[in-house]
Amino acid sequence: MFSSSRPALVIIDVQQAIDHFDSGYRNNPDAEKVIAKILGQWRDADLPIAHVRHASKFTESPYHPGSPYFEFKADAIPEQREKVFTKSENCAFIGTELDNWLVDQGVTEVVICGVLTNNSVDATVRVAAGLGYDVYVPAEATAAFPLNRLDGKYVAAEDVHWIFLSNLDGEYCRVCSADKLLSSVS
Amino acid sequence: MFSSSRPALVIIDVQQAIDHFDSGYRNNPDAEKVIAKILGQWRDADLPIAHVRHASKFTESPYHPGSPYFEFKADAIPEQREKVFTKSENCAFIGTELDNWLVDQGVTEVVICGVLTNNSVDATVRVAAGLGYDVYVPAEATAAFPLNRLDGKYVAAEDVHWIFLSNLDGEYCRVCSADKLLSSVS
Repeated sequence: MFSSSRPALVIIDVQQAIDHFDSGYRNNPDAEKVIAKILGQWRDADLPIAHVRHASKFTESPYHPGSPYFEFKADAIPEQREKVFTKSENCAFIGTELDNWLVDQGVTEVVICGVLTNNSVDATVRVAAGLGYDVYVPAEATAAFPLNRLDGKYVAAEDVHWIFLSNLDGEYCRVCSADKLLSSVS
Repeated sequence: MFSSSRPALVIIDVQQAIDHFDSGYRNNPDAEKVIAKILGQWRDADLPIAHVRHASKFTESPYHPGSPYFEFKADAIPEQREKVFTKSENCAFIGTELDNWLVDQGVTEVVICGVLTNNSVDATVRVAAGLGYDVYVPAEATAAFPLNRLDGKYVAAEDVHWIFLSNLDGEYCRVCSADKLLSSVS
């Protein structure tokens, strides 16, 4: 699957906060378990790993640094030697050193996973592609909430998830299965 | 609607190329007419105007600089004194001087319109918000094509349009009506 020997794993916003929104049923409830599996494999293969955490500017957000839910989820706790980037915007490249770090690591391919498909994952994938990286998104390792449309219609979480992934695929990234990703790294 | 006296208008990819895709029925067929109206009002009010054009890296694209359809559509031809930015990525801030120019103009609020809702408009809105601008998107002044989902389902152009606008609204921008926008500028 990869054409380089150093694909990086970038995990977006997998903090306890994600379980503290009143946004309805989230799809892919096992996304964190899948991410833990990918993370384990990246560690075993000694490949670059970046943990991105969201520090909301809004004090009432569960993602605010003062919130009890700001910490990483148990499935995605960084190890000492792994890089942590803290962002305040949806896109992980805005206001962080992520791009410089990837360049320093000699990375040309990135795997992006985490939450939410249609917010921080989407925003980060779009800019990663714009910056010239080849981007892969494992579909089972990201998730969405339902969306209330401005014209009054309702979009279920699973539909939001597939609509945003399908829009990214081909134009900004390659959407793949977690299994295919896991079998590509050893 | 605006809290500053210098809201900028940023028009994205309104080139003849957009009529040369075999992507099915586009919604908002009058989007260019609406954009022409907004552009006229911005000119009358002597407010900052940026025309962004897409120069595709792919020779077979109607947006490639060598294509006969690379030129702006008649509804949105820049005047001599107006700024033109040429981009090769979806996001108009990547590889261009748009951000510097907006800062130089003292702009804090931007109106973003053009095509497509779910590609260059979305990518530009997300980064504009991330860079700290207050962003407005007039719903009738942008448009989408249908989307074939990776899981085999089909999403009509009108649904793509409203799903992506609804996702941006509140988080990255304020979606408004063209009428409300036009009545806010004089």
